[in-house]
Amino acid sequence: MPRRLKLTFEYDGTDFYGWQSQLASNATEPAPVRTVQDTIEAALAALIGREIRIQGASRTDEGVHAAGQVAHVDWPDDVSIEPERVARALNSRLPGDVVCRRSEAVPPEFHAQRSATGKIYRYRILAPMDRSALYRRYHWFLRYPLDAEAMRAGAKHLIGTHDCSAFVGSLDPTQNQRAEEGKPPLDTVREIRRIDLREEALEGTPPGVREARVIEIDVEGGGFLYKMVRTIVGSLAEVGRGRYPPEWVGEVLASRDRKRAGPTAPPHGLCLMQVFYPTE
Amino acid sequence: MPRRLKLTFEYDGTDFYGWQSQLASNATEPAPVRTVQDTIEAALAALIGREIRIQGASRTDEGVHAAGQVAHVDWPDDVSIEPERVARALNSRLPGDVVCRRSEAVPPEFHAQRSATGKIYRYRILAPMDRSALYRRYHWFLRYPLDAEAMRAGAKHLIGTHDCSAFVGSLDPTQNQRAEEGKPPLDTVREIRRIDLREEALEGTPPGVREARVIEIDVEGGGFLYKMVRTIVGSLAEVGRGRYPPEWVGEVLASRDRKRAGPTAPPHGLCLMQVFYPTE
Repeated sequence: MPRRLKLTFEYDGTDFYGWQSQLASNATEPAPVRTVQDTIEAALAALIGREIRIQGASRTDEGVHAAGQVAHVDWPDDVSIEPERVARALNSRLPGDVVCRRSEAVPPEFHAQRSATGKIYRYRILAPMDRSALYRRYHWFLRYPLDAEAMRAGAKHLIGTHDCSAFVGSLDPTQNQRAEEGKPPLDTVREIRRIDLREEALEGTPPGVREARVIEIDVEGGGFLYKMVRTIVGSLAEVGRGRYPPEWVGEVLASRDRKRAGPTAPPHGLCLMQVFYPTE
Repeated sequence: MPRRLKLTFEYDGTDFYGWQSQLASNATEPAPVRTVQDTIEAALAALIGREIRIQGASRTDEGVHAAGQVAHVDWPDDVSIEPERVARALNSRLPGDVVCRRSEAVPPEFHAQRSATGKIYRYRILAPMDRSALYRRYHWFLRYPLDAEAMRAGAKHLIGTHDCSAFVGSLDPTQNQRAEEGKPPLDTVREIRRIDLREEALEGTPPGVREARVIEIDVEGGGFLYKMVRTIVGSLAEVGRGRYPPEWVGEVLASRDRKRAGPTAPPHGLCLMQVFYPTE
């Protein structure tokens, strides 16, 4: 029986068209776009000499980064590498923008997506900031200053278990596919456990240049709907710039109406930090 | 008389072959490699409709970044843009990895290089770290842990005004050119005013993965020799890993012998933070 391995990946999403493979399972043509999953599967195939599929915990979107994405793979019996050594062997075949940080044997019932009990995402903002060369890959730039205290007050309205329909991306591919197939829509109730917002001055601003603040928002929850973290961040930014009071976030949540929420923050500010499993 | 402008630039050095123009002043061919200076001069030429040269404060090497590089330019009288608005006009013609953070009028005697009274460079290290996708552009990875306290003790031996020959790059193009021309070598006495070392845990390390420390070394001095900051950092890393005691740094300095110093740290960990001028 093949051993199941848990693999933990870090990647810079800038030059990837998201996590999800764009290859059909029986494809013979190269994928039309570069995805993280296809890149890892190609490195695995080079390592073990045959095609192999992995299952990721989260289908991160185009441009989204990860410090702790998790995937599982069923390792063939006849390929004799110690589970802990797979990470290093894989890294010698991976490009610089995706790294396997850890590999370990797990019980056969472990499933990267279905066994997950929670996730932490981090969103990074620089404000006020027009342009920056050094921070452009990982931060959303906003031209106006943000009131971090008001954003924290707004975020409090989201903590708990709620129908989060107001914060789901309007083009959710899963929901659209279910609608096409005549299936009922997926449950939109989600638990948000924690939203932490840290703010500090950006170091190294040249003299005479308006100093920007770095704002990092950690969102931890049991699971997230399509583009949910980015829509939460876009809504909190509306509060931070003073367009709406903090209570507005609670009103949007209660409305279950996506049209009432703020804009979807861009993907490059988002990073999947950690996926939780019961054994940890 | 043309007005002299001071321009402050931020750039991500990853995809540049350093600051210094690789175009001959009368070149008609495109430059064989991409440099920051050539990129800015091309944007300026597009803005004002003619060729124009800039003078930078520091010739940063291939791969070195800047948060506060300074340059001056003599602005033609007949191009009527307010000095403060040049930055924004220029940015609309610059690629994403170089940004003008500020533009201002300065007296005609201001010279970006010769008027500078000091500079701050920052060097970033992650240790222990084999590979990382998210930090690879701006950090030097070392596989072994570093003793920050020993590095601080070693750095103290460098503070003051000394002959820094032991920390000059062996292929210094300026010195080599002077030797070819039969000129005496440039003075190698430099003042190091301050070396600050900060250390903290890298946030967001996945469970089960050895946690890295982020080490940031700020070096402030009156001026620096070729590859001097990187040779200082490479030497402090030797102390940090326990190869030599802190006093060894003082012995290397006193020896004036480059062969006794540590290796030159790679360029991508280095960032020119600020250039000082008397009026500030």
